[in-house]
Amino acid sequence: MRMVDMIEKKRDGHALTNEEISFVINGYTDGSIPDYQMSAFQMAVYFQGMTLEETAQFTMAMVESGDQVDLSAIEGVKVDKHSTGGVGDTTTLVLAPLVAALGIPVAKMSGRGLGHTGGTLDKLESVPGFHIEITDKEFFDLVNTNKIAVIGQSGNITPADKKIYSLRDVTATVSSIPLIASSIMSKKIAAGSDAIVLDVKVGTGAFMKDLDMARELAGEMVQIGNKIGRQTMAVISDMNQPLGYAIGNALEVKEAVETLQGNGPEDLHELCLTLGSHMVRLAGKADSTEEARKMLEEVIQNGKALEVFKLFLQAQGGDTSVIDDLSKLPTAQYKIDVPAKEAGYVSAITADEIGTAAMLLGAGRATKESEIDLAVGLVLHKKIGDSVEVGESLVTIHSNTEDIESVKEKIYHAYGVSASKVQPVKLVHDEITR
Amino acid sequence: MRMVDMIEKKRDGHALTNEEISFVINGYTDGSIPDYQMSAFQMAVYFQGMTLEETAQFTMAMVESGDQVDLSAIEGVKVDKHSTGGVGDTTTLVLAPLVAALGIPVAKMSGRGLGHTGGTLDKLESVPGFHIEITDKEFFDLVNTNKIAVIGQSGNITPADKKIYSLRDVTATVSSIPLIASSIMSKKIAAGSDAIVLDVKVGTGAFMKDLDMARELAGEMVQIGNKIGRQTMAVISDMNQPLGYAIGNALEVKEAVETLQGNGPEDLHELCLTLGSHMVRLAGKADSTEEARKMLEEVIQNGKALEVFKLFLQAQGGDTSVIDDLSKLPTAQYKIDVPAKEAGYVSAITADEIGTAAMLLGAGRATKESEIDLAVGLVLHKKIGDSVEVGESLVTIHSNTEDIESVKEKIYHAYGVSASKVQPVKLVHDEITR
Repeated sequence: MRMVDMIEKKRDGHALTNEEISFVINGYTDGSIPDYQMSAFQMAVYFQGMTLEETAQFTMAMVESGDQVDLSAIEGVKVDKHSTGGVGDTTTLVLAPLVAALGIPVAKMSGRGLGHTGGTLDKLESVPGFHIEITDKEFFDLVNTNKIAVIGQSGNITPADKKIYSLRDVTATVSSIPLIASSIMSKKIAAGSDAIVLDVKVGTGAFMKDLDMARELAGEMVQIGNKIGRQTMAVISDMNQPLGYAIGNALEVKEAVETLQGNGPEDLHELCLTLGSHMVRLAGKADSTEEARKMLEEVIQNGKALEVFKLFLQAQGGDTSVIDDLSKLPTAQYKIDVPAKEAGYVSAITADEIGTAAMLLGAGRATKESEIDLAVGLVLHKKIGDSVEVGESLVTIHSNTEDIESVKEKIYHAYGVSASKVQPVKLVHDEITR
Repeated sequence: MRMVDMIEKKRDGHALTNEEISFVINGYTDGSIPDYQMSAFQMAVYFQGMTLEETAQFTMAMVESGDQVDLSAIEGVKVDKHSTGGVGDTTTLVLAPLVAALGIPVAKMSGRGLGHTGGTLDKLESVPGFHIEITDKEFFDLVNTNKIAVIGQSGNITPADKKIYSLRDVTATVSSIPLIASSIMSKKIAAGSDAIVLDVKVGTGAFMKDLDMARELAGEMVQIGNKIGRQTMAVISDMNQPLGYAIGNALEVKEAVETLQGNGPEDLHELCLTLGSHMVRLAGKADSTEEARKMLEEVIQNGKALEVFKLFLQAQGGDTSVIDDLSKLPTAQYKIDVPAKEAGYVSAITADEIGTAAMLLGAGRATKESEIDLAVGLVLHKKIGDSVEVGESLVTIHSNTEDIESVKEKIYHAYGVSASKVQPVKLVHDEITR
């Protein structure tokens, strides 16, 4: 086989065979296919797409390019949740103990990443003493006992995807549905869970700006997962504004605890119940999402979910007194309100800009070397549809410096206020099961 | 500017500005833009095309990437002819002395290339003593005196095109009209002539298999040339079978001489008159192609064209006694006929296969290192539409080895014979002037 023939075949709109797809991925991973052929191939895929069969094979070839996590030592149906990324997304912190409280094993591998705030791991480090330096055996034991544990990502997971993604990033081939779908799904499948619930974000603050595109991506991922033998479904949720109120590491831990207590922001609570009920159903703990939702509401109300969260933190060295007294979490030196300049109704909160504002404060990493400040971030007081008076606080900035002009500017720029009444945005746009 | 933004812009179907096109070409030539970005860009061009404005700028940026030939020392309007390539194309050997005989300066730069037969330079070396090792001054003087001379290609002509072409070849982006058009035109424009006549081949033996595609390519090149200020026109000629009868180096010289004497193959004669009359008109020597054609016929009939050919060969060391006695040209040891196996009418002669058969004999170079045998080649006796009896010779193989089974096989495979009458193919499909 010659790569130039594969490029030509795809360019002309034909589907590659499984052998041909494997040839492309394996050759690119081992370096026998150079970057310039892969980038031409990807641009051809951008225009001609891939069939479901091709995309599934593309995904599996990437999975097989590296190590695959073996979770067989863990009892029960392992359900993973994945979000395509947004701003202020605290769902993982809430969902993990929430479903674990129903006996569903949550075996989480976590890394640090770039972004507006830190990853789940960074956020959890707001709890003094918490760490993920545990052995694989300890990890499996903890999941079997407590139904929840987090360990650092080890091994060489989907090296093909890493290499391909870097190339796509500099060749304008990121926004191709089959390439996005296979990239996400390869990582999820290599991570070893039995079932996958996808949270596909749509809106101004998400990669997918448009509902049709989000539906297409979700459908593609659900089909790949099911084709490969992992039960998969997707929720399409709104990201036209940040989710919840808090954007920041310790601030999101606080918000997660409040949500586990039943006192969290309405949208975060609702999305966690939606995603959670699908996880519970896929795990075989309930026959319907309605039944699952009731079960989740119960473990919030009876305190079981929060109890599991504390158990989990404690088991990995965390000082859970900060959960009982949230004021003991890392706190920023300055709390500065951003007052509304005009009265009316909030019509827009550009999530991207809010995220960038949080990053400017030090809540996230711009580069791998950036240091994260766990205490800083933003707390929104107004969301789309809320009425606002002149001088009322839109956002409180939690900062360790008084020099926050550029942060304020971003916030003002992100907020749109309209004179006429604005409808709140719909949170869950669709649920895709096949 | 960032290359990734240029790729994205083209991917999304937008036209790049002149500055952006120059950024792409200059960056790729100087190595600051890597192959993998250029190949993605070219694939985007493959799908989205380029406007005439973009293609002209792309062409000029490639012209300006290297040296440009300065022909200002030559008097008169310099007209160049370019063929997109076919099999048995002896037109250059005929046309050069033919138009020079009318006082039109023919300043030819020639290199050796890969192909079914050698290039013009190789063919001319069938004339003993002929060489192109002359100085620039000698070259210009010869053109001014005799109106015709050939020199080896020197200088660094369109390095951008060379680099881009190599990349296109391995990334399935060769067959893009704006990329082909700019590649051809950049070389022609850098070669310094005032006017250009293009011979765009179409048919099974040409790169353009289809008349619409050939028209599109021709139109694009004509427009680029005229936009850049070089008078340009194109003839679309048939390559569903080899042109003329001879395929081989010395064999084509013989055929060219016969054509200059008015005894050449009908199709070769006709195409030379068609292309030549446009050259004469563009050179300002005639007001119409009809008038030009009459002038060309005259210099064939009165022997002036052949005389100029001999003058030219002599001036560059050639022994022209071989022209007066063509049997003195390099001759192959064996002449083996390929008899028809069935009677009927010739319906097809796959030019590619005929070309490959000639190359197998040693008439052309498969790699840069291949040695050419000037004597060998093929002479066709039957062309499309001709009637044929069983045992009649289709082709005579001129070979220096008796081991010609694979050559014979290719010839039989190339020839199609039909029981029912077949119309001869049309030679000139179209003439494109804007």
